[in-house]
Amino acid sequence: MTAHEPIQDIAHLGHVELLTPVPDKSLWYFRDVLGMEAVGQEGQSVHLRGYGDHAHSTLTLTEARRPGLGRISWRAVSQPALERRADAISAAGLGEGWREGEGGRGRCFRFRDPDGHAMEIYYDEAPYHAPEGMRSTLKNLPMKYTGRGVNVRRIDHLAVLCRDVAANRRFAESVLGFRLHEQVRFDRGKMEVGSWLSPSIMHHQLAYVVDVKGAAGRLHHFALWVDNREDVLRAADLLAEHGVFIEAGPSKHNNSQGFYLYSYEPGGNRIEIYSGSYLVTAPDFQPVIWNEQERGTGVYWGTPLPDSFLNYATPDVTVSDQAPAGTVKLPAFDPI
Amino acid sequence: MTAHEPIQDIAHLGHVELLTPVPDKSLWYFRDVLGMEAVGQEGQSVHLRGYGDHAHSTLTLTEARRPGLGRISWRAVSQPALERRADAISAAGLGEGWREGEGGRGRCFRFRDPDGHAMEIYYDEAPYHAPEGMRSTLKNLPMKYTGRGVNVRRIDHLAVLCRDVAANRRFAESVLGFRLHEQVRFDRGKMEVGSWLSPSIMHHQLAYVVDVKGAAGRLHHFALWVDNREDVLRAADLLAEHGVFIEAGPSKHNNSQGFYLYSYEPGGNRIEIYSGSYLVTAPDFQPVIWNEQERGTGVYWGTPLPDSFLNYATPDVTVSDQAPAGTVKLPAFDPI
Amino acid sequence: MTAHEPIQDIAHLGHVELLTPVPDKSLWYFRDVLGMEAVGQEGQSVHLRGYGDHAHSTLTLTEARRPGLGRISWRAVSQPALERRADAISAAGLGEGWREGEGGRGRCFRFRDPDGHAMEIYYDEAPYHAPEGMRSTLKNLPMKYTGRGVNVRRIDHLAVLCRDVAANRRFAESVLGFRLHEQVRFDRGKMEVGSWLSPSIMHHQLAYVVDVKGAAGRLHHFALWVDNREDVLRAADLLAEHGVFIEAGPSKHNNSQGFYLYSYEPGGNRIEIYSGSYLVTAPDFQPVIWNEQERGTGVYWGTPLPDSFLNYATPDVTVSDQAPAGTVKLPAFDPI
Amino acid sequence: MTAHEPIQDIAHLGHVELLTPVPDKSLWYFRDVLGMEAVGQEGQSVHLRGYGDHAHSTLTLTEARRPGLGRISWRAVSQPALERRADAISAAGLGEGWREGEGGRGRCFRFRDPDGHAMEIYYDEAPYHAPEGMRSTLKNLPMKYTGRGVNVRRIDHLAVLCRDVAANRRFAESVLGFRLHEQVRFDRGKMEVGSWLSPSIMHHQLAYVVDVKGAAGRLHHFALWVDNREDVLRAADLLAEHGVFIEAGPSKHNNSQGFYLYSYEPGGNRIEIYSGSYLVTAPDFQPVIWNEQERGTGVYWGTPLPDSFLNYATPDVTVSDQAPAGTVKLPAFDPI
Repeated sequence: MTAHEPIQDIAHLGHVELLTPVPDKSLWYFRDVLGMEAVGQEGQSVHLRGYGDHAHSTLTLTEARRPGLGRISWRAVSQPALERRADAISAAGLGEGWREGEGGRGRCFRFRDPDGHAMEIYYDEAPYHAPEGMRSTLKNLPMKYTGRGVNVRRIDHLAVLCRDVAANRRFAESVLGFRLHEQVRFDRGKMEVGSWLSPSIMHHQLAYVVDVKGAAGRLHHFALWVDNREDVLRAADLLAEHGVFIEAGPSKHNNSQGFYLYSYEPGGNRIEIYSGSYLVTAPDFQPVIWNEQERGTGVYWGTPLPDSFLNYATPDVTVSDQAPAGTVKLPAFDPI
Repeated sequence: MTAHEPIQDIAHLGHVELLTPVPDKSLWYFRDVLGMEAVGQEGQSVHLRGYGDHAHSTLTLTEARRPGLGRISWRAVSQPALERRADAISAAGLGEGWREGEGGRGRCFRFRDPDGHAMEIYYDEAPYHAPEGMRSTLKNLPMKYTGRGVNVRRIDHLAVLCRDVAANRRFAESVLGFRLHEQVRFDRGKMEVGSWLSPSIMHHQLAYVVDVKGAAGRLHHFALWVDNREDVLRAADLLAEHGVFIEAGPSKHNNSQGFYLYSYEPGGNRIEIYSGSYLVTAPDFQPVIWNEQERGTGVYWGTPLPDSFLNYATPDVTVSDQAPAGTVKLPAFDPI
Repeated sequence: MTAHEPIQDIAHLGHVELLTPVPDKSLWYFRDVLGMEAVGQEGQSVHLRGYGDHAHSTLTLTEARRPGLGRISWRAVSQPALERRADAISAAGLGEGWREGEGGRGRCFRFRDPDGHAMEIYYDEAPYHAPEGMRSTLKNLPMKYTGRGVNVRRIDHLAVLCRDVAANRRFAESVLGFRLHEQVRFDRGKMEVGSWLSPSIMHHQLAYVVDVKGAAGRLHHFALWVDNREDVLRAADLLAEHGVFIEAGPSKHNNSQGFYLYSYEPGGNRIEIYSGSYLVTAPDFQPVIWNEQERGTGVYWGTPLPDSFLNYATPDVTVSDQAPAGTVKLPAFDPI
Repeated sequence: MTAHEPIQDIAHLGHVELLTPVPDKSLWYFRDVLGMEAVGQEGQSVHLRGYGDHAHSTLTLTEARRPGLGRISWRAVSQPALERRADAISAAGLGEGWREGEGGRGRCFRFRDPDGHAMEIYYDEAPYHAPEGMRSTLKNLPMKYTGRGVNVRRIDHLAVLCRDVAANRRFAESVLGFRLHEQVRFDRGKMEVGSWLSPSIMHHQLAYVVDVKGAAGRLHHFALWVDNREDVLRAADLLAEHGVFIEAGPSKHNNSQGFYLYSYEPGGNRIEIYSGSYLVTAPDFQPVIWNEQERGTGVYWGTPLPDSFLNYATPDVTVSDQAPAGTVKLPAFDPI
């Protein structure tokens, strides 16, 4: 066995931009229902954070004609690490060049993954400094735990759709240095349906799942963390009281062991309230691979996920929209 | 600012050996009350694991005249990383040389930290393969969740006592590559009372706390993880029903935000059932430093920790035992 | 308004007998998976209890050709109350006479409800006296909390099917003195689909739901209590690990606000692990009545209950079995 | 054994009036921190309710020079029951006569318990009708679950101090018809230190505990219910963030098995956030009696209750204030 050196250049998911056609309603969802804090506004964008997020802002809502993903920002572990990854991405032919950072993030290198999702890497970052009145009585908590609504603690992960899971997964592994932790593979392993990857010991911060409509650059869901399963149940009570459509959960996935609750924010993007799962500390962890039978309906317990979980993503497309010839026929399954 | 490159050579706490004068009773505590699985026996040692631990065994109980720590094993992220750390430790003059591994762990480099705690680093490791009947219905869980007793999921961290916190903390940072996440410093920062360190984004896997009795190489506590605060409360109910002495908790520390429950296993070692805390993903996280006033009694809520939490450790010593002249006078405080 | 005096003669559900064609397997389910204690055996019956149950035994499993209900035992608040209810039942023409009690219950009056479910009322009862080794360290807990499996605390309620909900509900109200707390009524209130009743401030201990197959005397489910929603989630993890089929949940009903988890014990009877709901203390509480739209799929959150929840009960019947002409056509709905 | 007929004339604790010298700050505590709803104001009083309370209002804060109890209102199960209790109280020489009701409660009979606490019984009550915007999506919930702060569900119980526990307990049992569920008795049973009583199967809605300062008519604490232990932990996080002094907990009492969190509202009254405990359904339940050793420090786990828990009550008195000769010497113990 040759000595293998893992790439450990990316620290974590740093920031996500979501597009919404109804920014005021989306702001209500994230601030008043989920309990995030609004920390600034620029042009048609509003910046938010969870009470436990280290950075000034971790989510930006930007007005747009259709919902979906804006840009995904990854934080490097150091300046040299940032430069190494920029070089690797350039070498892979996917770089878009260096830019001045935004929203408290320093100089960044922009790129697209093979499916076309807009991404960037940065290192410098402005931490959050709570203003008077928003300081926590816990010195190690960046912001007061306000107890407003669901009160999500921090951003957790993204699941995006793509036309070719293997190509995107390989890019994330070999170019970004992410580790593959779980996969769904159908047809005796020949069809890679979904891959769950992480830059760290967190179970996943990025999932690639096949887009059954053959479209490009779409978002399956964006997930926010709460500390306990009971918090997820409480979130369901609150979403129900606020008239927010709950698509599935609270329940437990088999893949990832995540305890989930999926709803649509008013702009149409699927948002997950998430807890549980497990840390992957072993450096030689072998990816867990699920076939059709093992994967089942994607739930560990009880009632299967609804069809919409497979078929709906943002922006929504009809098959004829973009990819009349490119649609994918899958046996019944559910992406996480 | 010069480009800084973090050391990321150690993956996680791999294995802990505890000494006990009453091995049968200690086994009862870890297996029947805490719900760990006994996976093997060698000589005067029995090997155990949590249902979520990746390695074959993560805790070994070894018969000894007095309780305390045996050896702490750290896993490297790769073979080259292991060699780099061995070189660094040797250069620091603390190495004890290479050995064949034990208990499923490969070739390892042994050393002592400045305070004399026995440690080793290794890379190769035998993962756990559950025998028939112990396989989980979750493909990503190494072992069946049996529901026996407290049913701790995995090992989490160690807190050890030492005479010179700064010296040991610096060793962990610069030689092992651990990151410092929190500290307690008294006397306007001049007296380093405790330091919480981690090889990864976990809040801490190793804490150094000053030994108020001036002894060497002692254990404050060894911690095992459960997934929810409710699991910690349930653990307290079970410890109480089994007649196990509960020293403190369930409650919440201010430092680390950990939700804790401390009891003594029959051999005398302090064991923590632990959940909560927070992940530290920011690569430029500034250590949170608590002074006398901020640290208070070490609890975020309610009743202070008892005196024993400061004064008792294993092996127990009277001041005259080892260090008549070396005892440390502290203002009232509580190490985590 | 005339002065109204409530009947308060029945204290609580005292004991339930379940029939099972596979008594050994059913015993495994209740004792090893749910964590009940087996306290005795007589003939083809085994007696069990939850750790918090006051009576010696609260559940009996009796071998039979087919699964279903044996007898339901209600405890009166006093000897005179028992006699008053016996008189009232006799006057209603449903009495079967006095018998010596069994299983630690004193002299009892046997009867059938209008649908034919076998019932009895008793007052005297042998409380549980824990043997050495099974005593709790809590003086107010009848038995040690062992932490084995799901560890249900006590029996909670029964839901039975019947051909005429209104007739059975009126019997429970006017003859037994139960209070009606919730109802499902379809067709502008004309069709009484289900009624939830209680002898006390507990939300319900008896539910009558229409039998869509037109059969008599069947059981929909028998429910056991745990203290927290997290305990229900933990129960789901354990049922899954033990290979027990989970029909629905964990999730939350709209009706009753109960947090539920339904599985089938190996004999075929549907068993609910239950928590939450609410106490009904107001003596003039107006029954909450749900129509088709309000009732929806019977869940407060997420995915609807499966068809089996409506169609399966014990003993199982095909429509042609018993009631070829008597089947009931319902719009889609889900009984609790 | 003669046939014994229990009195079952009182349904539940209906309403509590608390006195506070700082009404605005007390309102902040109950409305903004605990999440109760303010439903009206009259003179120097403001009326509040929990989201699950059936009555229009269950707590009134009234401005006064000193904190303490105003009046405790009990609801009868019927109009005849109300009249029976009024007769019994009059016969006991403690009646103060009939009055028009207030705050949505109908005609009531006022009285004082032997220690002088002001009480009343009533039957008619205005239920809460949620205004537009405050209606729950759950038809069986009187009001929207808003998710504001601790969000207590309903009022639960009162613990009051008195000079002669036995006399007050006997009054509650024989005149009000309450059942005795637990007691603390010291000195071989001769000294009745505390008694926990209930009009229903709830564990207790009224506790009498000896006033170690020998004063009259004082309040030890008033308790509000949340559904889970996790909710109590979350409450502690929120009280800490709001700078509210936490006296004790979250932890678990041995007596009552209640999971508690005690803080002082700004007016000085001790308030408990409460969950857990157990229902007492057996009509012949034998009161659980704890002696000095069994009672211990009043906690089932961990650190003892602080001295203030024994010595502080509202209104606060110095021993010389009222009862120079009447103080009670107790061995160390903790009232719940």
